[in-house]
Amino acid sequence: MRTRVGIIGGGPAGLLLARLLHLEGIDCVVLEARTRAYAEQRQRAGMLEQGTVEALRACGAGARLDAEGLVHHGIELRFDRTRHHIDFPSLAGRTVTIYAQTEIVKDLIALQLADGPPLLFEAEAYEIEKPDSGSPRILFRHEGREQTLECDWVVGADGFHGISRPAIPAQRTYGRDYPYSWLGILADVPPSCEELIYARGQDGFALHSMRSPAVSRLYLQVPNGTDPADWPDELIWDTLDARFATDDGWQLARGPITAKSVTPMRSYLTEPMRYGRLLLAGDSAHIVPPTGAKGLNLAISDVRLLGRAFAHLERTGSEQLLDSYSQLCLERVWQVTRFSFDMTTMLHAQPGGGAFEERLQHARLRRIAESPHAAAELAALYTGLPLGS
Amino acid sequence: MRTRVGIIGGGPAGLLLARLLHLEGIDCVVLEARTRAYAEQRQRAGMLEQGTVEALRACGAGARLDAEGLVHHGIELRFDRTRHHIDFPSLAGRTVTIYAQTEIVKDLIALQLADGPPLLFEAEAYEIEKPDSGSPRILFRHEGREQTLECDWVVGADGFHGISRPAIPAQRTYGRDYPYSWLGILADVPPSCEELIYARGQDGFALHSMRSPAVSRLYLQVPNGTDPADWPDELIWDTLDARFATDDGWQLARGPITAKSVTPMRSYLTEPMRYGRLLLAGDSAHIVPPTGAKGLNLAISDVRLLGRAFAHLERTGSEQLLDSYSQLCLERVWQVTRFSFDMTTMLHAQPGGGAFEERLQHARLRRIAESPHAAAELAALYTGLPLGS
Repeated sequence: MRTRVGIIGGGPAGLLLARLLHLEGIDCVVLEARTRAYAEQRQRAGMLEQGTVEALRACGAGARLDAEGLVHHGIELRFDRTRHHIDFPSLAGRTVTIYAQTEIVKDLIALQLADGPPLLFEAEAYEIEKPDSGSPRILFRHEGREQTLECDWVVGADGFHGISRPAIPAQRTYGRDYPYSWLGILADVPPSCEELIYARGQDGFALHSMRSPAVSRLYLQVPNGTDPADWPDELIWDTLDARFATDDGWQLARGPITAKSVTPMRSYLTEPMRYGRLLLAGDSAHIVPPTGAKGLNLAISDVRLLGRAFAHLERTGSEQLLDSYSQLCLERVWQVTRFSFDMTTMLHAQPGGGAFEERLQHARLRRIAESPHAAAELAALYTGLPLGS
Repeated sequence: MRTRVGIIGGGPAGLLLARLLHLEGIDCVVLEARTRAYAEQRQRAGMLEQGTVEALRACGAGARLDAEGLVHHGIELRFDRTRHHIDFPSLAGRTVTIYAQTEIVKDLIALQLADGPPLLFEAEAYEIEKPDSGSPRILFRHEGREQTLECDWVVGADGFHGISRPAIPAQRTYGRDYPYSWLGILADVPPSCEELIYARGQDGFALHSMRSPAVSRLYLQVPNGTDPADWPDELIWDTLDARFATDDGWQLARGPITAKSVTPMRSYLTEPMRYGRLLLAGDSAHIVPPTGAKGLNLAISDVRLLGRAFAHLERTGSEQLLDSYSQLCLERVWQVTRFSFDMTTMLHAQPGGGAFEERLQHARLRRIAESPHAAAELAALYTGLPLGS
C-alpha cells in the first residue's frame, strides 16, 4: 500500500489531520491500533478552545458540536469559601465549548468512513522504517498479516505510548511527575453549575465539570497510588462538598456515580517534533496535566499547523512550513506547558509543602480575582493562544 | 521620658513615620541604636515606587530627591541575548525613581533634627514592657544610663534583628532561604544603560543598576557562602559581560570597583503585625529578596498606613484604622512577597534545577515579552500596588 501521508493513530489529532488533508486533496491513510468501538469510548477531556471549535467546524465536523456543545463564557475560581468569576468574552474576546473528546472522535470517524481516505482499525503499526529518507515506510499488522505502508511523510499521532516518538533519535526530553492524582467520576445528575468550577479547598483541589446537561463530571485531588475502590460514593460526595463549600450556601447535587477512575498527573515534552519525514503531533510529543484541559487542544493545534504545512507543500512544492513546524509548535507547547504547570501548582495542596508556599498559592489566587491583567492572562491562555504564524 | 508614640529604629520607616506624626501634631520619639554616621552610611536599595516618592515629597523630604533622583520609565528584561523593554507609563501609568536609601535617611534625619521630634542616636532599646497594656514602656540605654520611654503606643521599625518582633507572642512565621546570593559591587563608571537591566544569562542572573550618573551598581548571582575576596575585579567584569551579552553588540563599561559585598536572599514574614499597642513596620515584620527592590517600598507603605491610622485616632479618637492595620498591610505584603519570589525564581539559575524548570523560566520570560497583560502585571507590581483602603 502507498500513500502521500501515513498517519499513525486514530485519535482526534490523527483523524482531524486526515480530514484536513482530504479537503486539500492530499492522499493519506490512518492506522488505528484499536477497534472502532474502543476508539469511540476512550474517556478524555471535553473543553474545547474557540480555535479548536472553529477548526472542527471548518472541516465539516461542527454540526453535532454546534447542536450539543455547551458554550461557556468563563470559569469560576473558588477559594476561601468564596466564588470568583473569570469572564472570558470581556477579558479575552473568546469563549470555550464543552463537548467530549469521544464525541469528536465519533464525528470525525463518521465523516472519514463516509467520504474520507482509508481509516484502518485494528491496524497496529510496529515500526517506522527509514524516517530520515525520502520514502519512509510504516510496518503494521492488519487482518492477521504483516503489511507495509509506503509513504512520502509519516505523522505520529499515536500518543504517549506509541512507536513514533522512540523512532526519533537524539531527542531532548523534559518531564515532571506531580505528587498527586485526580479521582474522576461521572454521575447521572445535572451539573450544579453552569460553568466549570476550579476549587482550592482547605485540603486540596476539586473540579466541577460536566459532560451534558444531565451528566456531571467531577474530580478530586487524591494521593498518588489511590485505588478508586477505597473511595465509596458517600466519601467522594462528602469530600467534594467540603472542597466546594462556600459561605453563600451553594449546594452540590448528588446522583448515581456511573464511573470512577484515577489519573496521575504528568508534564512531558520532547524536542524536536520532527525527524526527517516523521512528524509528531499531540500526546506523542507532549503531555500536560489535566488542569486547564489543554491536552486535546494542543493536539488539535499541532495538526492544524501540519494541515497548513502539507497544503503549502502541495500547492507550492515548498517544505518551508514543514521545516518550521517543530519550532513553531514548541513555542506554543512550552507556553501551554507552563500554563498547565502554574494552574496545577496554584490549585493543588502540595504534599509536604510548607505554609509559605501555601500562602503564595493563596496570594496568586487573590491576585487573579483582583487584577484585571492577571485575570486577562488566565483568560487568554485558558481560551487558547493563537496558532502561530 | 514620655511620649505618645515611641518609635524603635531610625531607618527610613521609623524616620518617615516620625515625620508623618510630627506633621499631624502627634508627639513621638525615635530611638536609633547606632550613630548618626552609621545610620547615614548603611548601603541598601535605591528603587522607589511612585507612591514612595510621593510620600517623601508630601512630608517635605522631596527637594533633593526631585533634584538628584533618576526617574525611570521602565526596565529591561534581557534573555536569549535579546533585550525586551517593559514600559511603565504605558503599562501602569506610573514611573519609579532611583535614589539611594542612604540619601533618604540623610534627608529625613536633617529634617527631624531641624524641627522634628526627638531623635536619639546610640539609644539601644533592649526591652518593650507590657505591650499589651494601655501604657507600654521601652527600656533603652543611652548616654551610659538605662532609661525608660513611657508610651501610649510603640512602633517597632527596628529591622529583622530588632527586639520588636520577638516581643509579640504567638506569631505565625513564614520563611524561605534561597539557594543563591548576590555579589554586589559599586563601580566608579557611568552606567552602561539608562534603566535597570534584569538579565537571565546562561549561567545565572545579573542586574545592572546605578547610584548616580557617575556610579554604577551591579549584581551577580553567586553560590551561597561566596567570599567576595574570591572574586577579583577582572572575574566580576568577565562574568557580568557574559551574562549581559546580546547579539546587538551592547557593551558594558568597566571602571574601578569601590565596594564588594555578598547578600543572601531570604523571604520572611510574620503575622500578625500588631500585638496590643505594639505595631511592627518594615523589615521587623517582613523580608523579601532584593529582586524587584521591594523591601524599602514595603516599609514606607507600612508607615504610610500607620501615619494615617494615628492621624485618624488623633482626630476622631477611633482606633479603627489601627485595628485594621495588620490585616491591610499583610494583604499587600503577601502580594509583594509573591512578586519578589516570582521575579527571583524566574531570573536565577536554580542550583540542581532540572531542564524542565529552566524551560519553564524561559517560557515565563518570553510570555512577559510577548503578552501585554503579562507585561502589565509586572509593571503594576514593580511600580507599586495601591496602599490599600
